[in-house]
Amino acid sequence: MPVHSANIERDESLEADLEAIWAEIEPPVVRRLMIAAVQEFAIHGYHGTTTRDIASRAGLSPAGVYVHFKSKEQLLYRISLVGHQRSLEVLAEAAASTTDPLARLRAVVSDFSSWHARYHMPAKVINYEIGALSEEHFLEIGALRRRIDAAMRVTLDDGIEQGAFVIPDVGGMALALLSLAIDAARWYRPAGQRTPAEIGTLFADLAERMVRP
Amino acid sequence: MPVHSANIERDESLEADLEAIWAEIEPPVVRRLMIAAVQEFAIHGYHGTTTRDIASRAGLSPAGVYVHFKSKEQLLYRISLVGHQRSLEVLAEAAASTTDPLARLRAVVSDFSSWHARYHMPAKVINYEIGALSEEHFLEIGALRRRIDAAMRVTLDDGIEQGAFVIPDVGGMALALLSLAIDAARWYRPAGQRTPAEIGTLFADLAERMVRP
Repeated sequence: MPVHSANIERDESLEADLEAIWAEIEPPVVRRLMIAAVQEFAIHGYHGTTTRDIASRAGLSPAGVYVHFKSKEQLLYRISLVGHQRSLEVLAEAAASTTDPLARLRAVVSDFSSWHARYHMPAKVINYEIGALSEEHFLEIGALRRRIDAAMRVTLDDGIEQGAFVIPDVGGMALALLSLAIDAARWYRPAGQRTPAEIGTLFADLAERMVRP
Repeated sequence: MPVHSANIERDESLEADLEAIWAEIEPPVVRRLMIAAVQEFAIHGYHGTTTRDIASRAGLSPAGVYVHFKSKEQLLYRISLVGHQRSLEVLAEAAASTTDPLARLRAVVSDFSSWHARYHMPAKVINYEIGALSEEHFLEIGALRRRIDAAMRVTLDDGIEQGAFVIPDVGGMALALLSLAIDAARWYRPAGQRTPAEIGTLFADLAERMVRP
């Protein structure tokens, strides 16, 4: 394996970050399996990962995986569900943190973007492997994604109504701001020039420039 | 396979698009292998694809692949090299198309973004599978990516020098504009609301709003 991939596996701070997202998952063995699956999927892709790989990383036998998840797709589904719920919560909490339209937009863009940088491994998995979900799970996750999109649009519409923003295409700008955040999961490196918080501030600054009258 | 993935495989216009990028690759059997590999890598990921899968899609035996490419990684490397060269050409041609700073920025953002939507399958492969390249190939592709980044920065710096743009963080804005374009390869759907050309115009409009004094 080339050095640049190996670095992803060796960064211990990532393990701590992953724990933070899945902290409420019980029992611990299920949490351990989900964390192991996120790492395998992020590094080798969903289709490049076997249940045996996940079991091995979690310190279980393949049969031990099937006690808790009846398929590899069930693991992807649980990861996608929790990941989307967490990212929607982050966005909703930012939106509720202030009534000033510009401060709200800055908080929403900043927090949603820094979340995707900080949790780049699960963020990659939940955004890139959507096509591997079953049709039923795809529809359920799609509904969560539409709520994320709607929350961003409401933030923009609110600023227009209060006369603070001028936005020719609200749907297009919402798409762009969400896209900027999600793509941070692709290019962000823990050893790179910008911290997750700095990425949040950069994109909040750009969002502010975009909505100026 | 779920319906939403199957759609990707059945869209015949994608085949035509793929042909356009690789049209100059000779001999035809090498071109056919590269097109087959792009499709397999885009749908199942690099690690989820075997040389046998690629051979089968191209109508060859696995041994027939090894006549032309000594490994799966060599196929990824050739695809990454040609894909990055083409996207750099598109950006450089747009930059050379006019001397007006704003018209140039619009052309660069629009053409680079619509390229990533239109050629979303190869664009996904060349941007998401970088970690699977050998260290030597990773360095070579990294040099091409730095030229793409430099061309975007020059476009922004030029507008600042001519007094047309105000940009507090040129590196950050270049990163954001390239990121918006590249992420179109993730979310673009041929049956979606916006055509590649419309995506280009949307992002050019946003870039124009970002650089306003």
